[in-house]
Amino acid sequence: MHVMILGAAGMIGRKLVERIARAPDVLGTTISKLTLVDAFQPPVPEALRSLSTALTIDLAKVGVADKLVEARPDLIFHLAAIVSGEAEADFDKGYAVNLDGTRALFDAIRHEGLKSAYVPRVVFASSIAVFGTPFPEVIPDEFFSTPLTSYGTQKAIAELLLADYSRRGIFDGIGIRLPTICVRPGAPNKAASGFFSNILREPLAGKPAVLPVSDSVRHWFASPRAAVGFFVHAARIDTAEVGPRRNLTMPGLSALVSEEIEALRRVAGDKAVALIKRESDPVIERIVAGWPTQFDARRASALGFKAETSFDEILQVHIEDELGGRIA
Amino acid sequence: MHVMILGAAGMIGRKLVERIARAPDVLGTTISKLTLVDAFQPPVPEALRSLSTALTIDLAKVGVADKLVEARPDLIFHLAAIVSGEAEADFDKGYAVNLDGTRALFDAIRHEGLKSAYVPRVVFASSIAVFGTPFPEVIPDEFFSTPLTSYGTQKAIAELLLADYSRRGIFDGIGIRLPTICVRPGAPNKAASGFFSNILREPLAGKPAVLPVSDSVRHWFASPRAAVGFFVHAARIDTAEVGPRRNLTMPGLSALVSEEIEALRRVAGDKAVALIKRESDPVIERIVAGWPTQFDARRASALGFKAETSFDEILQVHIEDELGGRIA
Repeated sequence: MHVMILGAAGMIGRKLVERIARAPDVLGTTISKLTLVDAFQPPVPEALRSLSTALTIDLAKVGVADKLVEARPDLIFHLAAIVSGEAEADFDKGYAVNLDGTRALFDAIRHEGLKSAYVPRVVFASSIAVFGTPFPEVIPDEFFSTPLTSYGTQKAIAELLLADYSRRGIFDGIGIRLPTICVRPGAPNKAASGFFSNILREPLAGKPAVLPVSDSVRHWFASPRAAVGFFVHAARIDTAEVGPRRNLTMPGLSALVSEEIEALRRVAGDKAVALIKRESDPVIERIVAGWPTQFDARRASALGFKAETSFDEILQVHIEDELGGRIA
Repeated sequence: MHVMILGAAGMIGRKLVERIARAPDVLGTTISKLTLVDAFQPPVPEALRSLSTALTIDLAKVGVADKLVEARPDLIFHLAAIVSGEAEADFDKGYAVNLDGTRALFDAIRHEGLKSAYVPRVVFASSIAVFGTPFPEVIPDEFFSTPLTSYGTQKAIAELLLADYSRRGIFDGIGIRLPTICVRPGAPNKAASGFFSNILREPLAGKPAVLPVSDSVRHWFASPRAAVGFFVHAARIDTAEVGPRRNLTMPGLSALVSEEIEALRRVAGDKAVALIKRESDPVIERIVAGWPTQFDARRASALGFKAETSFDEILQVHIEDELGGRIA
């Protein structure tokens, strides 16, 4: 099987590649070829070097999608995107990459299929940003998409295209609406959601972190390991069971900031918790107030997608996957 | 005020123009200029001749939208579309007109606004085809869009763009999800939904009509007059009251085929009803089974949009507007 990963240098992309490197049969079939694509140089794990090609290329450029799809990958993970803040700040760039780049990919598959039979599996990274406030307390699977960002709009449009192209048999697509990923590895970033991870990751490393919102803020989480699990499962799932509604809100953990903090206390003690500095930030508070807090992700759960059920688990994943099993 | 109507030669477009001709203040302000655009020659009523320009032009052609928007219309009705059956049969044409044509219009407005302040009102004709089965018995305003046709997909995407462009202040948009229009004037057509109108219009004219489904089929209706009323109301509404959720399912009448027939009997007697020939058509039955039957269009109703509440009213509208108030 030829597997192509678009967005292979991103956080989830890298972890997906590492997962394949550790367990080459994780996608159900032997991988004969792996094509890693990103606007930034995608890393290639040693174990996969012989069958991998890494391409540093911009999906939004004319002809790029056609060129990539000409090689007829059997399975395409499409994780490439301009992130929310940048898509909001740069109208043209966000639409060019997140909408036109995605459509170019989908149309490249269509044109390839017109030459001779070709129906790859496409697993697409969507987002809970397709939803816009006000919400019911628990958002059901049939709740409508009324995004309040251009990023969310672009993801919602890509979802519609994915469903229509799948319905027409152009490819066999699944859209995965990711929860907020926590604990994000790496340095603190400027994303409005960064603090959810910062207040765990930094104290675990003996460093201070800022909490800009109240302890009673509720949000929707899954670990990076769970996210990779969603993509792997989506690659293997029987899409006949999924039917025409191809975009699925993933299961996640609905938890309070205070639950994050108590889980941190259980694993790393009061000393770690004392490193969290409360500095309320009205701008971030307002942004966060517009985010969904809980879903009833019934369909995805019934289809076998799994996330963590407590912050203790989420912390454990971080300690195992990022800290080699030990905390500072 | 300069008013532009895209799709001015279509059934609703013509009726909207006629409405303006009869009551030039119907849109709230004096009209100084009326631009009528369609791929087919749009008719110009005598009363509007001095202020009208009729253009036969394809919105999907490169540069056309920019050219049209350069004249800075204050109010744009966008009713131009490839219909459902054709968009399903011709993938490229449907996406080119319904998606790319609409986006070209929206982007033309954006580019015009970058030159100097310009924020027109845009009233867009969407459709209940944005919904795909299975449905709850009554579809609420917050039900998700999972279309099962490319036409419905294109309309749902246009809705998302309209909401995002409105949120960004590029224009001030309203999307109008029309019920099935009944009684459609003119000759019977091949649309799967045609029979809903045929079984009333033809017998009223003393002609036979075929009913291909059971009497117990339920569907969602509004008259052409109500549809024009939706567009006129959307042109004048205070969009601050609408908020960021700019796409509205219009109110309508949920009725059985048997209710259509009984209304016909009341107005035209058993002789008219006897002209309806029952010839069950499994293909049409299957298509119709996938359509929504009832909405709780609470938001649009609260915002002042109005439709008929009985088939007697719908028939009365047809008799008044199409038959000069008299039946054969």
